[in-house]
Amino acid sequence: MFNYPRGLSRIPTEKSTSSLLTKVPKRAVSTDRNKKSVAFGKRGMNFEAEINATNEYYLSHGLAVIHKKPTPIQIVKVDYPQRSRAKITEAYFRQASTTDYSGVYKGHYIDFEAKETQQKTVFPLKNFHEHQIVHMSNVLAQDGIAFVLLHFATINETYLLPSSHLITFYREKQGLKSIPIHYIRDKGYKIETNQIPRIPYLEIVNKLCEVH
Amino acid sequence: MFNYPRGLSRIPTEKSTSSLLTKVPKRAVSTDRNKKSVAFGKRGMNFEAEINATNEYYLSHGLAVIHKKPTPIQIVKVDYPQRSRAKITEAYFRQASTTDYSGVYKGHYIDFEAKETQQKTVFPLKNFHEHQIVHMSNVLAQDGIAFVLLHFATINETYLLPSSHLITFYREKQGLKSIPIHYIRDKGYKIETNQIPRIPYLEIVNKLCEVH
Ligand SMILES: [Mg+2]
Ligand SMILES: [Mg+2]
Repeated sequence: MFNYPRGLSRIPTEKSTSSLLTKVPKRAVSTDRNKKSVAFGKRGMNFEAEINATNEYYLSHGLAVIHKKPTPIQIVKVDYPQRSRAKITEAYFRQASTTDYSGVYKGHYIDFEAKETQQKTVFPLKNFHEHQIVHMSNVLAQDGIAFVLLHFATINETYLLPSSHLITFYREKQGLKSIPIHYIRDKGYKIETNQIPRIPYLEIVNKLCEVH
Repeated sequence: MFNYPRGLSRIPTEKSTSSLLTKVPKRAVSTDRNKKSVAFGKRGMNFEAEINATNEYYLSHGLAVIHKKPTPIQIVKVDYPQRSRAKITEAYFRQASTTDYSGVYKGHYIDFEAKETQQKTVFPLKNFHEHQIVHMSNVLAQDGIAFVLLHFATINETYLLPSSHLITFYREKQGLKSIPIHYIRDKGYKIETNQIPRIPYLEIVNKLCEVH
């Protein structure tokens, strides 16, 4: 398996606000959960990288099998040089038609999208595309577990919001451009990130499965 | 959402035997299942396209939500021209670390890989990579439904083989380079493809879920 060049991560999608590849510092690992250095180290690591690290932890501990889907790419030109591997010479980022993460936990289908914002009191709805909302509705109709992980980077708070509540808000409050944080606090679950694994969302998923 | 250029499909992976993009004829649609023209038209359509069409059918009929994961690409160089979207100018096909298809059916996590061969009596094991076998084992350990869809193109027969049997064969018969078709017929389920949807694998998955 190949990896992205060292230090590069977070491929921008077509409509992404980040138009450059972002440097991801190495994960700061500490077992002392109270030290300020942990929170500080964590702040430098991007949210997606934290989730990926969490998923690796879950996988290696036999707790869940959840992967990030590859970034969809529209391939236009490919060279086939003799004696060496095919080289893509023209391609573009495509918008994902589903969500970023999916997998299985104790037989349950798990499906989620992870997003972060610099806002402090609202989560902009422009982060979600109509086809992602449709996909989440389809997953719920098949009795899958669907949610979004929302990270407020500035205030360093992370929430799990079940997709049902996101869909309701998205459908009913079409006029609004953002979800107020109080709606997320009310309908969602706060994830305490100050530990290993980084974003222990499975604890909440476990509750959702019980209700399920 | 963008699509591949018209008529292009089946992006070759690094170790794929097909080193060129393959033309996919339009799907021949007929409601008469006995006419030879159906089988003939079908023969021209590649296996992966048939599965994708089947998944579209399942999705649009509210029967299951199963998607093909995007082809993993290693991105090396990206141009950011002003006033136009990011252009990838150097990239390579990566080997997939999981399987091609996953999704949800009545709450169950579904995970499979689709492969075809020109062989008539055996299915070459080189079609499966060690990390895919590991992934399938992980999925089974989490009580997911995992299988492979095997298409013998020359004799036009398609089988669903539960991953447990593939894994057993792969692990125990390391010396052998292929799975004999009688093993697949014995441990797997034949899929009758002469109908719409093309590859009605959900009927067999339904049986597997009941046993589950
Ligand atoms: Mg995303
Ligand atoms: Mg494949």
